[in-house]
Amino acid sequence: MIATKNKQWILKSRPVGAIQDTDFAFGDAPVPEVEDGQILCRNLYLSLDPAMRGWVSDAESYSEPVPLDGVMRGIGIAEVVTSKHDEFAEGEVVMGMTGWQEYALLDKNDLPNKVPPIPGIPVTNFLSVCGITGLTAYFGLNDIGQPQEGDTVLVSTAGGAVGSVVGQLAKLKGCRVVGIAGSDEKCQWITDDLGFDAAINYKTENLGEAIRTACPDRIDVYFDNVGGDQLNSALSWLNIGARVVICGAITRFNQKGKLPGPSNYMNLLTRRARMEGFVLLDYRERFPEALATLVPLVMSGDLKHREQVVDGLENALSTLRTLYDGTNTGKLIIKVAEPSA
Amino acid sequence: MIATKNKQWILKSRPVGAIQDTDFAFGDAPVPEVEDGQILCRNLYLSLDPAMRGWVSDAESYSEPVPLDGVMRGIGIAEVVTSKHDEFAEGEVVMGMTGWQEYALLDKNDLPNKVPPIPGIPVTNFLSVCGITGLTAYFGLNDIGQPQEGDTVLVSTAGGAVGSVVGQLAKLKGCRVVGIAGSDEKCQWITDDLGFDAAINYKTENLGEAIRTACPDRIDVYFDNVGGDQLNSALSWLNIGARVVICGAITRFNQKGKLPGPSNYMNLLTRRARMEGFVLLDYRERFPEALATLVPLVMSGDLKHREQVVDGLENALSTLRTLYDGTNTGKLIIKVAEPSA
Repeated sequence: MIATKNKQWILKSRPVGAIQDTDFAFGDAPVPEVEDGQILCRNLYLSLDPAMRGWVSDAESYSEPVPLDGVMRGIGIAEVVTSKHDEFAEGEVVMGMTGWQEYALLDKNDLPNKVPPIPGIPVTNFLSVCGITGLTAYFGLNDIGQPQEGDTVLVSTAGGAVGSVVGQLAKLKGCRVVGIAGSDEKCQWITDDLGFDAAINYKTENLGEAIRTACPDRIDVYFDNVGGDQLNSALSWLNIGARVVICGAITRFNQKGKLPGPSNYMNLLTRRARMEGFVLLDYRERFPEALATLVPLVMSGDLKHREQVVDGLENALSTLRTLYDGTNTGKLIIKVAEPSA
Repeated sequence: MIATKNKQWILKSRPVGAIQDTDFAFGDAPVPEVEDGQILCRNLYLSLDPAMRGWVSDAESYSEPVPLDGVMRGIGIAEVVTSKHDEFAEGEVVMGMTGWQEYALLDKNDLPNKVPPIPGIPVTNFLSVCGITGLTAYFGLNDIGQPQEGDTVLVSTAGGAVGSVVGQLAKLKGCRVVGIAGSDEKCQWITDDLGFDAAINYKTENLGEAIRTACPDRIDVYFDNVGGDQLNSALSWLNIGARVVICGAITRFNQKGKLPGPSNYMNLLTRRARMEGFVLLDYRERFPEALATLVPLVMSGDLKHREQVVDGLENALSTLRTLYDGTNTGKLIIKVAEPSA
C-alpha cells in the first residue's frame, strides 16, 4: 500500500554562511503518478555529505545548484515501489539521487544503480565505506595523492568517513600515516583502532609544531578536506615532489564574505609540489575497480569504519549541521523508512 | 694583466619588503689567489632575475639564502683568466654562479659550464632565451603545463623574458595564446611581433572580464609569474583539467607581512585542475634537450626575444629593482666588462 503524501525538504533560500532553519521548509507533496519509463522509489536511507553546502549555493561548481523551491538533492538507498521501466522490478533495492523526500520518481535522466545483496555488508555501507565516502577516499588517495611505500601521508578530518578510509588505505600501501582530528576520542580511535601512526588534535595542539613532530620526514601526500589553517600548515611542511589532494574545504562552507586562500601556496614552487582537486563522479566507470578493493577489506575487517544512523527524515537538516561543526562520528546517514521485507 | 681590486656587491641586511640601498654595500675586495683545482673568472655579463629577491631572504626556499656579508649570488658569463684546473683553459668563456663581482674564484663546488661559440647567437643569449629564462619557459610550459593543440594558454608577465618565450612556444604547439602585461607597448609587442592571439593590459583593463573575453573556451594552461590578482583571476576561469604552472610570484616579493593566498583555489576541485610548481635546476640534465629546440628557433628568427643590457656592475642594484616594478623590457643583463679578445 502506497501512501498518498510525500514528505519533502524544500530549499527556500540560498544560505549565507551556515545553513539556517529558514533556508528550508519541511512539508508534504502528493506522491507522484508513475508514467512509462519511470520508477517510483521509497527512500530507506539518505547520505548526508559535506558537499551539500555547495549544492545549495549558486557559486559555480561541478554541478548545477539545487533550484529554489526544489527538493533538496541527496543520494539515497531506496526500494522500487512501482516500476514502469523494463530494467527495474518492484522490490529491488537501488541507490541514486533520490533526494530528501520519502518517495522519488526517477526516469532515464537519473536512473539509479541496483544494490546487490552482499553477505556481511549492510546496505548502509553502500552510502559509506563501499559508497560515496569510501570511493572518494580511494580515488583521491590513489589517483591524486599517488602514495608510495615509505611516504608520509597526512590526512585531515581523519576521524571522518573519508579521512578514516584514506588513512587505512595509505597504511595498507606501507606509508607512515598521520591524522588530524578535532577530539581526543577521534585521535584515539584512529591510532588505537585504525592503526594510524600518529594523531593531532587541532583544537588543543599547536598545528604547525605538531605536524613537524609527527612528520619528521615531512609530508609526501596531504589529503585536505578542510582548507584554512590545516591546509596552510601542511603547505609549510611539504616534502620535495609532494602531492596535495583537494577533496573539500569544510572550514570554508559556513563562512561569509571573501575567504583567504592558502598563503603558503608558494611552497608548491620551492618544494616542486602539486595541489590538485578531483570530483568523484569523474571516476564513475572505475567504481567497480574500487569496490573490488574496498568490499573484501570491509568483509575481512581490515577496513574499519563508523556510521552514525539518525532516525527520521525530519531530522535531516539538524543532523547535516553536525557535519560542519565536527560533532558527528563517522558517516552520517538518515534512516527514512524500514525496508518492506 | 689582472687587476688587484675586485669590485663586489655585498649583502648587508635582509630586505623587508622592497630591497633598499642600505641592504647592500658596493665595495672593493682583493682579487683572490688561485690554488690548485681552482679557476679565476672575469665576469662579462650578469643575469638579473626575479628570484633574486628570494635568494636574499631567509625564508625557506629551494636554495640556501645568500649569507649576510657574502657576495650577492648571480649567474654570469665570464672569461677564464687563470686556470689551475685541468678542464679549463685561460681565455675560455664560461657560464656559472659567478656572483655580483668583477672576479670570481670557482672550484669543484661550483665549476661553470663552457659556453660554446655559436654563429648567430650572441653570448648574452645564454643568459636569456638560450639560458635561464628560455629554459624556465621550456620546462615550465612543457613539463608542468603540458599544452595540447587547441588548448588556451594564458601567460602572465607576457612581455617579460620568460613569459614571451612561453607564449611563443605555446603558439608553436598550436594553442590559443593570451598574454597579460603591464603596458600597451608590451601588449602590442606580444600580439604584433610575437603572434600572441590576444593581450590584456592588467593596469588598464578589468582583469576578470578581459580574461573571459580573451579566453572564450576558458583556460587550459595558466603560466603564473606574478601571484596575486592575476593568479586568482585565472583560477576563477579554469577549464576542466586545467594546469596552473607556478613559476614565480613577483607581486609577493616586495610586500611586507603575511600575504593572502589565492582565495579561488577551490576551483582546483570544481574544475578538477592542478596547480604545480617547479625549479629549473631540477631539469639540469635535460638542458641539452631544451637547447636543441631553443637554439634553432632563435637562429631561424622563429623565437623572438628582447634583452636589456645595462652597462656597469655599479648599476646592478638599481637595475634589479626595475624587474619588480615592471619597467624593464626584456631580459635584464648587466654588462660588467668587455671580452678581452
